[in-house]
Amino acid sequence: MSGSSSFFDSRWVQAPANVNEPGDGLLPKGFRAAGGACGVKPNGEPDVALMVSDEPATTSTARFSRSGAQSAPVLHCRQESKLWQLRAVVVNSGNANAATGSRGLGDAAAMCAAAAVAAGVDPHQVAVASTGVIGVPLPLERITAGIAALAAELRAGGGEDFARAIRTTDALPKEVTLDVILEAGTVRLSVQAKGAGMISPKFATLLVFVQTDAEIDADEADLLLSVCVRRSFDRISVDGQLSTSDTIVFQASGASGVRIEPKTEDERLFGEALDAALRQIALLVARDGEGARRVGRVVVKGGDQHLAERVAHAIGDSPLVKTALYGGDPNWGRIIQAVGATLPGMAPLQVDISIEGIVVCVAGAYVEHDHGALVQAVAREEVQYEVVLPGDGAEAERYFSDLGHEYVTINAEYTT
Amino acid sequence: MSGSSSFFDSRWVQAPANVNEPGDGLLPKGFRAAGGACGVKPNGEPDVALMVSDEPATTSTARFSRSGAQSAPVLHCRQESKLWQLRAVVVNSGNANAATGSRGLGDAAAMCAAAAVAAGVDPHQVAVASTGVIGVPLPLERITAGIAALAAELRAGGGEDFARAIRTTDALPKEVTLDVILEAGTVRLSVQAKGAGMISPKFATLLVFVQTDAEIDADEADLLLSVCVRRSFDRISVDGQLSTSDTIVFQASGASGVRIEPKTEDERLFGEALDAALRQIALLVARDGEGARRVGRVVVKGGDQHLAERVAHAIGDSPLVKTALYGGDPNWGRIIQAVGATLPGMAPLQVDISIEGIVVCVAGAYVEHDHGALVQAVAREEVQYEVVLPGDGAEAERYFSDLGHEYVTINAEYTT
Repeated sequence: MSGSSSFFDSRWVQAPANVNEPGDGLLPKGFRAAGGACGVKPNGEPDVALMVSDEPATTSTARFSRSGAQSAPVLHCRQESKLWQLRAVVVNSGNANAATGSRGLGDAAAMCAAAAVAAGVDPHQVAVASTGVIGVPLPLERITAGIAALAAELRAGGGEDFARAIRTTDALPKEVTLDVILEAGTVRLSVQAKGAGMISPKFATLLVFVQTDAEIDADEADLLLSVCVRRSFDRISVDGQLSTSDTIVFQASGASGVRIEPKTEDERLFGEALDAALRQIALLVARDGEGARRVGRVVVKGGDQHLAERVAHAIGDSPLVKTALYGGDPNWGRIIQAVGATLPGMAPLQVDISIEGIVVCVAGAYVEHDHGALVQAVAREEVQYEVVLPGDGAEAERYFSDLGHEYVTINAEYTT
Repeated sequence: MSGSSSFFDSRWVQAPANVNEPGDGLLPKGFRAAGGACGVKPNGEPDVALMVSDEPATTSTARFSRSGAQSAPVLHCRQESKLWQLRAVVVNSGNANAATGSRGLGDAAAMCAAAAVAAGVDPHQVAVASTGVIGVPLPLERITAGIAALAAELRAGGGEDFARAIRTTDALPKEVTLDVILEAGTVRLSVQAKGAGMISPKFATLLVFVQTDAEIDADEADLLLSVCVRRSFDRISVDGQLSTSDTIVFQASGASGVRIEPKTEDERLFGEALDAALRQIALLVARDGEGARRVGRVVVKGGDQHLAERVAHAIGDSPLVKTALYGGDPNWGRIIQAVGATLPGMAPLQVDISIEGIVVCVAGAYVEHDHGALVQAVAREEVQYEVVLPGDGAEAERYFSDLGHEYVTINAEYTT
């Protein structure tokens, strides 16, 4: 029972009571993975990765970027892959295979074919993802050779190599393995992710791969993933930018022999563990944020749900709020500016604002407060804002990174 | 005929042929102005300004921020001022009188009353504007004393003092005086503006004051202003943030004796001059942009008008596009990312992209191009992007500043 585990280090994520962090480096039963370098990244760092389930009955589900300019791998997965029966996932980093037209679609199919051979599965049971520069054709031969070479490297302890090979500008690793103790037995849950927001020197992306050896029906897995993604990755903002390539794949091998039945206590417990893992990973993405010093959390209450979501989104994406967070500046005027910009026609706006529990604004007007305490509060690594709109019931939440010099340096000065 | 005038220095603004820049420092006939320091700004810089028309028949119109968190001066003008008969405009800088509740409304009314006395006009014929820090009560006594002191300073040559006193973080002055040669005679047109985007150390705002001595009906003036604002200030983005306080006031004294009749060639000529002046001022705001090196212009063609506007907006607001512009980075992947994010569900997206006339993407896929020429093109002070969506007829345009270190420095490091 590792409620005080080192992975769950944000005060905004509750470490589930029925979860251990095993630390043996092994993937959930049934899975093998590998990662290596095939020469897409000019610096020779790992850039190709393969994850395989050896269980024919593996179930799965997936989520993709909603961009209208989806990358070739995303288009390929949506059109060609059996997303509920994925046995393998193949990934390259260093090139996103996006804005590459019909050649890009052919290259994505070729990656799946190579992975299918390496993993010994049907090509339609392979998901493919690519992340890196866009608008440049993939060096396909290197990648297919790299995939073939990974066949011999696949192993139960390969999760870390896989995770390393999918990263681009990430400063922090984003992976975890948990043992989840259910009534029916113990199952393992692993996550490997990459993403420092939606940004990078060239272009970046959120990729998340989740494996478990629990047995879960595909539609139940889809339901769980859907809920957990809404509470994690849908709530983070680094720069408000949507990638062409975001991909999340969840696979359940069933190899533990422990079946998770719908609407049971075990499903609730497993969902809690998945939720906590994905929320912590999402916070790591926001915290990574290419030079971010601080992570903000905004909770918006009141209004209707749609308005509350929009206000939370606007605050989390505001460069004025983000630069203030970076500077440790308690300038709450930027919060009310973002709220007002989102709610035209509602002037005079009845909004309450507090920062770290210190009330600074009631019914749209400043109130006296302890400025010294406020300055101290916003200097911490995690800063919480609460915004209350008129009306009851709705609540929205968003996590966001700050906006600092490193963002500019990385995105402006590392030119193509 | 100053088609080569120094004020119209952007290649994106056509200097009208029937316009001179007189350089005598005088406002249009009938107007007097003054500006001075009253101690709102701690550094003693000018922070209070008054503009008065001595003509009882003066017509006017105004535009305000659509924010739901409108400042007290904006709320006061909308509720109390005869916006079609404004004789005077009173402004303070250094404090926005926003998020100040009922006290703020009282303070705005008191400023109007003081200005009415100083100008000898009805308080309902005064517009008030404030810009600066928000959420802090106005030092009202200093301001009303300052306004009273300006009464003796009002003069036809006071436009520049007025302009200086309304500025906050502006690095560039934003004012112009033009003589517009019409068939019915020559009229004068002056503009004083402030704004380095919607941003500043504390919070900033766009304030624009326009005067002419032409005689124009108030509803015709409103129509002209509406068209010109849509083509200028509605098309600029520094950081996508909407102020609580944006205010534009247009006053016509009629003192030249030259009347502009609706739907005449003179109206077209005057409109052209107003349009060019406001577009150039808008570009100065984008160029100012607190440390901006470059200004971008994006033109989106095709799609329907609504989509084209949204895409232009998304590109102009994208921090990835803005940092690339700052870095002189021809990374067009960031353009297609912004387009795709705006048009979910349209994958694969048929979009063409060119930068400074160099075609980089056709039908959503890269095309070979002269990279060296592209690198040179994006290193200039003004960079133009063209995005073509499927469909005919629509066209949207947006000007935007880059995002660089100075933005972060000003907004993060000058803490409260």
